[in-house]
Amino acid sequence: MTFGVDNLPYGVFSRPGEAPRVGVRYGDHVLDLAPALHDEVFAAPSLNPFMARGRTAWRDTRALIQNKLTDDTSMTERHLIPLEQVRLHLPFEVADYVDFYCSIDHASNIGQIFRPGTEPLQPNWRHLPVGYHGRAGTVVVSGTPVRRPRGQLGPDAFGPCAKLDIEAELGFVVGVPTTLGSPAGAFEEHVFGVTLVNDWSARDIQAWEYVPLGPFLGKSFATSVSPWITPLEALPRIPGRAQLPEPVGYLRRQSDWGLDISLEIVLNGEVVSRPPYSSMYWTPDQMLAHMTVNGASLRTGDLFASGTISGPAPGERGSLIELTWNGSEPLKFSSGETRSFLEDGDTVTIRARAGELTLGEVSGTIV
Amino acid sequence: MTFGVDNLPYGVFSRPGEAPRVGVRYGDHVLDLAPALHDEVFAAPSLNPFMARGRTAWRDTRALIQNKLTDDTSMTERHLIPLEQVRLHLPFEVADYVDFYCSIDHASNIGQIFRPGTEPLQPNWRHLPVGYHGRAGTVVVSGTPVRRPRGQLGPDAFGPCAKLDIEAELGFVVGVPTTLGSPAGAFEEHVFGVTLVNDWSARDIQAWEYVPLGPFLGKSFATSVSPWITPLEALPRIPGRAQLPEPVGYLRRQSDWGLDISLEIVLNGEVVSRPPYSSMYWTPDQMLAHMTVNGASLRTGDLFASGTISGPAPGERGSLIELTWNGSEPLKFSSGETRSFLEDGDTVTIRARAGELTLGEVSGTIV
Repeated sequence: MTFGVDNLPYGVFSRPGEAPRVGVRYGDHVLDLAPALHDEVFAAPSLNPFMARGRTAWRDTRALIQNKLTDDTSMTERHLIPLEQVRLHLPFEVADYVDFYCSIDHASNIGQIFRPGTEPLQPNWRHLPVGYHGRAGTVVVSGTPVRRPRGQLGPDAFGPCAKLDIEAELGFVVGVPTTLGSPAGAFEEHVFGVTLVNDWSARDIQAWEYVPLGPFLGKSFATSVSPWITPLEALPRIPGRAQLPEPVGYLRRQSDWGLDISLEIVLNGEVVSRPPYSSMYWTPDQMLAHMTVNGASLRTGDLFASGTISGPAPGERGSLIELTWNGSEPLKFSSGETRSFLEDGDTVTIRARAGELTLGEVSGTIV
Repeated sequence: MTFGVDNLPYGVFSRPGEAPRVGVRYGDHVLDLAPALHDEVFAAPSLNPFMARGRTAWRDTRALIQNKLTDDTSMTERHLIPLEQVRLHLPFEVADYVDFYCSIDHASNIGQIFRPGTEPLQPNWRHLPVGYHGRAGTVVVSGTPVRRPRGQLGPDAFGPCAKLDIEAELGFVVGVPTTLGSPAGAFEEHVFGVTLVNDWSARDIQAWEYVPLGPFLGKSFATSVSPWITPLEALPRIPGRAQLPEPVGYLRRQSDWGLDISLEIVLNGEVVSRPPYSSMYWTPDQMLAHMTVNGASLRTGDLFASGTISGPAPGERGSLIELTWNGSEPLKFSSGETRSFLEDGDTVTIRARAGELTLGEVSGTIV
């Protein structure tokens, strides 16, 4: 079974006329957790109250669900609802959204495209995971149509974005908050789980606006996330990549938080790239340590994403600007069509596997 | 009376043992609005539910409060609580926080300090109000101690920030949200009021981290706001500054949203600067139009700030990095002390007047 008892991602669902509430995906069904576990925390329209309970509760709940699904089948069957009967919602209330830039291949590609002939990585890149704040209010659930943004494309150019792009990313969702002034503790004490992210990007808007304060309208029109949050506990871990120079103290890895996740980017039904998360330079525990080293507090529902995931090979790049080298090498499809950037009606789906585990996909169509 | 019936800023207060709720400042008192107006929207611990009601409700409520304070004194006196008996809280739940860069004198000063001998303004600066997202979760109410952040200060330097600075700004608080995909309508239909903002800045952390994605940890450790939100309706308006080149269509001003607000920055009891808001290049209606032109939605509680307010004269600069020209010209105090940047124990207060109107001040002490 694709979404078996070793997986069990959490989401928020509703049936027509009913209030949204928390469930767990099991095969092609959703387990309605509030009645199944007799716990009102799952009657909330978001995962936030449950995520705030912390790691012990997350583990106990997961074990309880696994036991019920395995041993108590007649009881649980009453609370299993076929997926085709439900609507899936944004699974958590997003507090702050931070986007990092953790792929050395992505950062190198972007450097080569925009500053050919110079050192592609900025001087700070190998010393800290570069990141910035995105717009939390425009994080939307998979399936939400993405409207092509309008904006300034240059000093005398205004109109619809002509370089609409994707960024295939992995997002990390914070459950347990911190107090202002204190850096976060261990990664696994704060982070509840992961979700696939498509950080839609208007490259022409971004190029004109981003000096000196960073991306703004080129990113803020929509960021799509999967309806399913995979618990951290379900993910196999591997060592992170070697890092040179060795990072400063607070960024030294305390344990292995490399993740062996293989992504696929599907554009109008054809796989156009297979980015490997294992190639990322900065690991998520390093992102968390960096984000809070200055005393910035975490809230339940904070989302931080890896930045575009690109591997070293051409077929492993996580954005169209890299895959088409800023439009100079359009993608060719079996239909004969080509694409430099996204056209209206295009559908992009990002899916991923971590070993035997399938992550919930994220999809969106340009309108 | 300093906070008379023409002023009436809103805040959230509590007395010991009582729940926080909404009040209006009247002289040295807070009017307890829920019982005074028999409206449970003011029993909430934040202004958000009231702000979401929209402009007609804001105007009617203000008129009702003015009438009650003027004509119904015996009734209202029962609901006036002396300020010294209450604690003031963050007055609204911050949804997204955007910080702009709207002062041409500030942007020019920063350009001259960091890129001497070159054109101080970036090519995009006169074409759009440059902005970026800040951290909503670390917006704190005036009086909250500000802990000196630690971080990377360069490739081999880690430690406490040595260039801790302020930014005197005006913040705009959104009441009425928009739908994803649709630009905002008229400024006065969405924006509820204004608040003084101190956007604390770690200049050394910021300088090392900000290329290419903008400020992150150099800003995210704390942003202080006044406990009082002055309703837009109370503010006198003036024409905005002339703009060359003329902005593109969506940025053309529909009405006058220049504001004649005079600020004072007080460091350990001495006024060190008097920034004039009237010198700002981009007006707040232009910030709102820009922020949403790409279809990004607004939520109740969104905060967007002007960026550092600096006038053309040396005594009108809104940050220490400008006032001391990056530390090369320290401020001298009557005690004989000097300051290039903030030291532990320093207290900074920003206060302001708009004609006869006093804005609620914002203050913080470095610990």
